[in-house]
Amino acid sequence: MIQNATLLLVEDNADDVALMLRALRKHNVANQILVARDGVEALDLLFPAEAKNNAAPQNLPHLVLLDLKLPKVDGLEVLRQIRSHPTTRSIPVVILTTSDEEKDLLAGYDYGANSYVRKPVDFIEFTEAVRQLGIYWFMLNRLPPRGE
Amino acid sequence: MIQNATLLLVEDNADDVALMLRALRKHNVANQILVARDGVEALDLLFPAEAKNNAAPQNLPHLVLLDLKLPKVDGLEVLRQIRSHPTTRSIPVVILTTSDEEKDLLAGYDYGANSYVRKPVDFIEFTEAVRQLGIYWFMLNRLPPRGE
Repeated sequence: MIQNATLLLVEDNADDVALMLRALRKHNVANQILVARDGVEALDLLFPAEAKNNAAPQNLPHLVLLDLKLPKVDGLEVLRQIRSHPTTRSIPVVILTTSDEEKDLLAGYDYGANSYVRKPVDFIEFTEAVRQLGIYWFMLNRLPPRGE
Repeated sequence: MIQNATLLLVEDNADDVALMLRALRKHNVANQILVARDGVEALDLLFPAEAKNNAAPQNLPHLVLLDLKLPKVDGLEVLRQIRSHPTTRSIPVVILTTSDEEKDLLAGYDYGANSYVRKPVDFIEFTEAVRQLGIYWFMLNRLPPRGE
């Protein structure tokens, strides 16, 4: 696992955030977890003021778990901006959403999501899915290096 | 799981292919597994003659596990061609390789790999990694629809 692996959760549902934090911390899959409650908060975390001047942001996440239906700026627009900026374009993004619509699935992959996981409705299944996600991406998968 | 999910293994090491087939079949994670032993075989499977005339290929895989060091045409070139063609560009591609070099990791993500997994040297760990890969991509992840 990457030292000091940082995960960004972009999720507006407070209950889902609480469940995800519990599942991720219990299995110790990331050292630091950032939470953004809407698309604007996510973009502010990914592109802070110094990054806008082409300086390297201090605390970029190594993985983003991204809901699609978000207040203010939606998930696909957040994904589009992640893929458009040199500092963020290689960050793996997993869409984690209740939507099972084909158009969202297609758009997610088209916009460059690495993976698309449907949120289980049952909370035990949801916890298990988050645990599996954390293990896959932080332990089995090798994340892109960033010269750290 | 997608009905009749098809997995394409692109791998030139016959021992690795045998281990992967055993792990995948044991856990029943894909209905059909295609094997390409070099980059040319992979491209022939992905882009058969009818596809070159813009007809829809009959048996496109839903997921590709791609080694990088391949005879004839290397893995990055196979990935580049997958991402360049409208019929194949959304297919998730997981690089599965012994290479742990930063340049390969960076290039893999740059060329549009969805994930990069290092092949464990130990064969029990390798079998377990393949099992986890299969479960993640065919059961937890939702693959892009293809109007089937």
